[in-house]
Amino acid sequence: MKISVLGCGRWGSFHAWYAHRIGHEVMLWGREGSPHLAQLYASRRNEFLTMPEAVRLTDDLAAALRFADTVIISIHAQALRSFLCDLNAAGMTGLLTGKQVILCMKGIEIGTGKRLTTVVHEELGDTVRPLVWVGPGHVQDFVREIPNCMVIAGEEREELRALVEEISSPLIRFYYGEDLLGTEVGAAAKNVIGLAAGMLDGLSYGSLKGALMARGTRELYRLVQAMGGDGETIYGLSHLGDYEATLFSPHSNNRRYGEAVVRGTADEFHKIAEGVYTSEALMALSQKYGVDLPISETVYEIVVRGADPREQLTRLFLRATKGEKD
Amino acid sequence: MKISVLGCGRWGSFHAWYAHRIGHEVMLWGREGSPHLAQLYASRRNEFLTMPEAVRLTDDLAAALRFADTVIISIHAQALRSFLCDLNAAGMTGLLTGKQVILCMKGIEIGTGKRLTTVVHEELGDTVRPLVWVGPGHVQDFVREIPNCMVIAGEEREELRALVEEISSPLIRFYYGEDLLGTEVGAAAKNVIGLAAGMLDGLSYGSLKGALMARGTRELYRLVQAMGGDGETIYGLSHLGDYEATLFSPHSNNRRYGEAVVRGTADEFHKIAEGVYTSEALMALSQKYGVDLPISETVYEIVVRGADPREQLTRLFLRATKGEKD
Repeated sequence: MKISVLGCGRWGSFHAWYAHRIGHEVMLWGREGSPHLAQLYASRRNEFLTMPEAVRLTDDLAAALRFADTVIISIHAQALRSFLCDLNAAGMTGLLTGKQVILCMKGIEIGTGKRLTTVVHEELGDTVRPLVWVGPGHVQDFVREIPNCMVIAGEEREELRALVEEISSPLIRFYYGEDLLGTEVGAAAKNVIGLAAGMLDGLSYGSLKGALMARGTRELYRLVQAMGGDGETIYGLSHLGDYEATLFSPHSNNRRYGEAVVRGTADEFHKIAEGVYTSEALMALSQKYGVDLPISETVYEIVVRGADPREQLTRLFLRATKGEKD
Repeated sequence: MKISVLGCGRWGSFHAWYAHRIGHEVMLWGREGSPHLAQLYASRRNEFLTMPEAVRLTDDLAAALRFADTVIISIHAQALRSFLCDLNAAGMTGLLTGKQVILCMKGIEIGTGKRLTTVVHEELGDTVRPLVWVGPGHVQDFVREIPNCMVIAGEEREELRALVEEISSPLIRFYYGEDLLGTEVGAAAKNVIGLAAGMLDGLSYGSLKGALMARGTRELYRLVQAMGGDGETIYGLSHLGDYEATLFSPHSNNRRYGEAVVRGTADEFHKIAEGVYTSEALMALSQKYGVDLPISETVYEIVVRGADPREQLTRLFLRATKGEKD
């Protein structure tokens, strides 16, 4: 296949590296003036990997769209709408018609609580049918040849099968999922659970991460069900399957951010962790669908509204006793 | 309450320590000649804790049974039947009538695939209605004042509520569960998943523990459903909620054992990890209920039948692609 990857941060550059590795022709796009792109132009390297010469680099979006039959988008989730809006305004939407568009990013739109595929539909119309590629694994591990499983979700089983055929390798084994809604919500929400995990670590309450896993999945199961998805997707690779990477790995940005919040050093992060935005988006969904999300709400109260982490988390986990399914 | 704890190993001694701490009168029984008991007699200490003087120590089983209105049993799971059989033969069954019997132990009987509460019913009859107390937490953490959540399961909601009232404290928050079958199978099976986690760690494939969590819970969900329990119990505290302790903690005996198997140093363990027996018991259940258990079977093939860990685990996680719910 001919694959263009839009976005050349950590994951975008990995996707370009991976697509080339498994035999596809690849173009990697970064916006004009992107420091990541400049670094790749200058040295063919970034913090994580060496980009093969055969991967074309460009800051020309139209060229990247023309080149590809499959387009992977990997940019900041909260920037997706403005990116697509600009693309539309520049008259480039037609360049996507009939092409596979795969979102390799995790988030829910702040303010609206909308899924990223909904944002795509709203901005580009129905001629584009986006797929989602998420799941466990760290770039740091993949480039050291440590294999993992990931998930591709979409609405058409045959399309999924065919795509998975093209992108599987001994480094990444794919499962495919047919519950796009649950996959997107779960992939985004795991960053919120990651923040909670980091806060527990920061309080030396790391052994409560077991209860966090059991209770966190349960509240999100209920949310996905209420939204019309399949609650069980929460227990699949896009959410629970990503807990190792998000709740336990030293690489996890959200976990580290949560730890820093407890220690009062979050200011040292050069940007806010994605889970902070997602916690706010989840509050909108909680209200819209009438589903109580005690863990997500606690995270929101702490990281957005500045509540005290120890007091909030202790109350959350050690409050009145109840039945497991209540 | 008057509580007798039967078994004075790591968990038994913890339960006695905890019951005393929250204000109950406690007697701790160990069999005659038990080195654990001898150590407690000699120094009031073991590897983990200091036992308060107010906790009575005894090797007189009849005295321990007479003393208590609530009996906690915490012995090796595979030794439960012979223990109860001896108790019966000694004419002591009547001493349990009308008393709460709580099993604080995890396992499935090897050879029969039977749950521990079934073993109790078969040996003691129906006058005893056993409850199960399991869930996350390490003795090492509790004695350092690190709180956790656990679960008490039984068939009568009112009895559970009342018991939970008596044993909750800021150190342990209890949920109660009404699916005894799922709780028991889940609590036992998590040791098998713990062995798999240790083997992945040993192979430097620790990042596959995310996929292990998603796929392990799924196969056990199917098993519990087939056995007539509630599959969702697997996602509660007794199984998934114990994954932090079992799959990630350096204290986890099963995880460490799995790691040792891969490194060829399992001989250095002075006893076989409980999950080894459970993997064998799960094979009986897999056959009896016609449920495919690929992860449990892989563990069994490695730890019981001596198959090669790298080959087996790579095949398991990186085999042909399929749907998440297939």
